[in-house]
Amino acid sequence: MAPESDPIHEDELRDAWPVLAPRDRVEGFRLLPPSSADDFFLSLSSNDQAGLLQALTPSERRIWMRVLPPDDAADVIQSLPVEEHAACLALLDDTSRREVQVLLAYAEDAAGGLMNPRFVRVRPEMSIDEALGYLRRQAREQVETVYSAYVLDSEQHLLGVVSLRQLFQAAPGKTVRDVMRTEPVTVREDAHQEGVSRLFAEHGLSAIPVVDAQGRMRGIVTVDDIVSVVQEEATEDIQKVGGMEALDAPYFDVGFFAMVRKRAGWLLVLFVSEMLTATAMSRYQDEIARAVVLSLFVPLIISSGGNSGSQATTLIIRALALTDVRLRDWWRVLRRELLSGLVLGAVLGTVGLARILLWQHLFHSYGEHASRVALTVGLSVLGVVTWGTLSGAMLPFVLRRLGFDPASASAPFVATLVDVSGLVIYFTTAELLLRGTLL
Amino acid sequence: MAPESDPIHEDELRDAWPVLAPRDRVEGFRLLPPSSADDFFLSLSSNDQAGLLQALTPSERRIWMRVLPPDDAADVIQSLPVEEHAACLALLDDTSRREVQVLLAYAEDAAGGLMNPRFVRVRPEMSIDEALGYLRRQAREQVETVYSAYVLDSEQHLLGVVSLRQLFQAAPGKTVRDVMRTEPVTVREDAHQEGVSRLFAEHGLSAIPVVDAQGRMRGIVTVDDIVSVVQEEATEDIQKVGGMEALDAPYFDVGFFAMVRKRAGWLLVLFVSEMLTATAMSRYQDEIARAVVLSLFVPLIISSGGNSGSQATTLIIRALALTDVRLRDWWRVLRRELLSGLVLGAVLGTVGLARILLWQHLFHSYGEHASRVALTVGLSVLGVVTWGTLSGAMLPFVLRRLGFDPASASAPFVATLVDVSGLVIYFTTAELLLRGTLL
Repeated sequence: MAPESDPIHEDELRDAWPVLAPRDRVEGFRLLPPSSADDFFLSLSSNDQAGLLQALTPSERRIWMRVLPPDDAADVIQSLPVEEHAACLALLDDTSRREVQVLLAYAEDAAGGLMNPRFVRVRPEMSIDEALGYLRRQAREQVETVYSAYVLDSEQHLLGVVSLRQLFQAAPGKTVRDVMRTEPVTVREDAHQEGVSRLFAEHGLSAIPVVDAQGRMRGIVTVDDIVSVVQEEATEDIQKVGGMEALDAPYFDVGFFAMVRKRAGWLLVLFVSEMLTATAMSRYQDEIARAVVLSLFVPLIISSGGNSGSQATTLIIRALALTDVRLRDWWRVLRRELLSGLVLGAVLGTVGLARILLWQHLFHSYGEHASRVALTVGLSVLGVVTWGTLSGAMLPFVLRRLGFDPASASAPFVATLVDVSGLVIYFTTAELLLRGTLL
Repeated sequence: MAPESDPIHEDELRDAWPVLAPRDRVEGFRLLPPSSADDFFLSLSSNDQAGLLQALTPSERRIWMRVLPPDDAADVIQSLPVEEHAACLALLDDTSRREVQVLLAYAEDAAGGLMNPRFVRVRPEMSIDEALGYLRRQAREQVETVYSAYVLDSEQHLLGVVSLRQLFQAAPGKTVRDVMRTEPVTVREDAHQEGVSRLFAEHGLSAIPVVDAQGRMRGIVTVDDIVSVVQEEATEDIQKVGGMEALDAPYFDVGFFAMVRKRAGWLLVLFVSEMLTATAMSRYQDEIARAVVLSLFVPLIISSGGNSGSQATTLIIRALALTDVRLRDWWRVLRRELLSGLVLGAVLGTVGLARILLWQHLFHSYGEHASRVALTVGLSVLGVVTWGTLSGAMLPFVLRRLGFDPASASAPFVATLVDVSGLVIYFTTAELLLRGTLL
C-alpha cells in the first residue's frame, strides 16, 4: 500500500472498496486527488454514499451532500436511519432541500422516486438560435442533461421534446415548435420502476419525461439511472426464484443476523409445508412395510417432479417479467406446457424404467416383481413430471392474477408443492399396478 | 381491427406484436405512417427485425437494411440463417458493408460486437468554436451520438473525451485539449459484454470508447445498447438457476421441439444423478424394513437440504455476477455460510423435533421410540441443512475456479447433489441413535 500521505488512484480505491472496513474507506477517500474525488463519490451506490457520509466530519458532509443532484440526494437520505433524515436535509441549500423533500414523498421504486426535477424547459415559440443559446447557458447549471429539452406551455403541460441534435440540424430561422417531436413517450410519476425500465428497453431512449396525472411535467428519468434499476430488479427476481426474500444490498453489506432472518423465513415456510410429505407417507406406511422396494424410489420420483416444476416456473416468471408472455396468454402456455410435460415425462420415465430393468438383469436388485416395479416407477415419473411442469408453469399466472409478484412462486416453493402430490401419484400408481403381487 | 387501408398507430402495433403471426406483422408494419415506421423498426429486437426483413419484398428489404446503423445491421445479419448473410450484406452501400463486415468478425457478446464504428473525432488543437461547428455538421451524419467527441491523434490513439456540454460551457478561445478529460474509461474490443455493462453501472457513463490492443479507438458502445445486454445476461442467469440451458429468445419464439430439447438435457442429467438416491436407499433397505417409520421423513430431510442448498447457491451466483463477492472471498463466504447453515439448521431441526413430539402426543403416530425418532430427525435436519448451505455456497466458487459459468451451478443441480448426501447423513444418524432400540 502507498504511504498515508501519497494520493491514490481512483481505480485502485474502487477495486479495494468492497473489502475495506468503513474507517479505511474514509481514509482512502480522503487520499483521492480532488479532481477524481467528485467522480468517485458520484459513482458510488447510495448505500455506500450514505455510509461514507456518516463517517465524515460535519463540514465534509455538507460539501459532499451538496455535490449530489437532488435524485441522488434523496436516495442517500432514504439509505440513512430515519432519525438522521432531518439533519441530513438541513445540510442542503434551500432550493435543493425543497426539491429533495418532494422526491422523498414518492415511493423509492416509483418513477417519481427515480426522477431528477432539473431539466431544460423551452417554449414552443422560441427560435432555434434562441433555444441553442438558452441551452448553452443551461449547460452551466445543475441540470441532468442538456441533450434533450422539453417544450412546455405556461401550465407546465408537456407539448413535445426536442433534442440538442435536432436543434443543431435545423435551419436557424425555424421555431422550436417546427422541429419538436410531439406525443413523446412519457411515464406517470407513480409508475413502477420495472415498467420504466421496460419503456427504455422498448424505445431505446436516453431520457423519459415524468408527468403527473394532469399531464404536467415533473422531471426526467435518464437511462443511466435505469441500468442499476434493471440489475436490481433482476437480482430481486433471482433471489426470489432461489427461495429467499430479496436482500436489497450486496452480500457482505447485509449483517449476519439480518441475512439469516431473511433466509429462515422462506426455509421455515417450505419446511412446514414439506411436513405434509410425512403425513402423506404415513398414509402409505402399510404399503411400504409390505414392499420396502417402493421406498427406494421415493427421492427419485419427488425430485423429478421438483426439477421439472422449478424449470417451468423459472421460465414463465422471467417471460412474464420481460413481457414476452402476458397474463392473457395463460391458455396458450397451458397447452404448450402440458405437451412439454408429457414429452419430458415420457423421456425420463423411459430412462427410469430401463434403469430398473437393467439393474435387475445385472444385479437382481429388486426381487421377483421387478418388471412391475419398473413399470410403476416409469408411469409415476411420466405423471409427476407432467404435473410438475404444468403446475410450475401455471403458478406464476395464478400469483400475478391474485396481485402477487410471480417471482415469489420460487422454484423451491413449486418443488414443495409438487413433492406432496408426487407421493400421491406414485403410491396410487403402485396400488393400481402392484395389487395382488407385491401389495 | 381497423380496415386494411387505414393507418394504424405505432403503439397499437407494438402491443399486438408478440401475438401476431409473421404475415400479420408485415401487414401491420406496412400500415404504419412513414413518420413512425422508422422509429418502430429501429425499436424492434434484432430477431424481430430479421424476421420482418425476410418477409418483405427485395426492394423494401434494401430500404430497411439501410436504415439500420452498422452495429444493428450486424446484429440482424447474425440473426439470419448463414446462407442468407451474403445476400443481406449486398443490400448495403459500400461504406456500411465494410463496417458491418468488420463488426461481424467480433464475437456477438464482445464489446467489438456491440460497438458502433461511427463516432465524432476531434483533434486536440481545435478551438472550442471550431469543434462546436464541426459537431454541428456531424449532427447531420449517421453518427451514434454527437454528445461525446473523442480526441484522437494522427494514429487514432485516444487522447481524451470531451462532452458537448463541456464545449458549451468553455470559453470560446480555449482549445479542445484544455477542456478534454484525459484517461477516460475505455474497454478493449474483445471484452465480454457482462464486463462492459458492469463498467456502465459503476461509472454511470452514457458511452464508452472501444479500443484495440494498441490503444487505437475502434468505436463506441452506448448505454442504451447496454440495457438490453443487462436484461439478456440476467435472463440467462435466471434460466440457468432454474435448471435449463439459456433460451436466448422470447418464450413463444422458441419452437416446441427446440424448447423441449433445451429442457430435457438438464432434466436428464439431474434424473440420472438422482438415481444415485435409489442406490443409496437400497443400502439402507434393511433398516427401513425394520423401522418403516424412518422412511416417512425421507422426503422432508432431503428437501430441507435441497432448499437450503439452492438458496445459498442462488445468493452466491448473483453476488459473483454483480462482483459483490469475488473469487478470493471464498474463505470469508465459507465461514459465514457455515455459521448460517448451523443457525438455519438448528431452527429447522428444532421445529422438526417439536412437530414429531407434538404429533406423538396428540395422535401416537410414531410408536414407542418416538422421542428417539424425533431426535434423529432433528439432528439430521441440522446436519443436512448445514451441509446443503455450505456446499450450495461453495459450488459456484469451484465452478468459477474451473473456468465454468457459476450460474450453471443451478439450484436443482445442488439439490440433487445434496439429496444423496442427505440420505447418508440421515441413515447414519439413525444407526447411531436407534441401534438397540428400533434398529
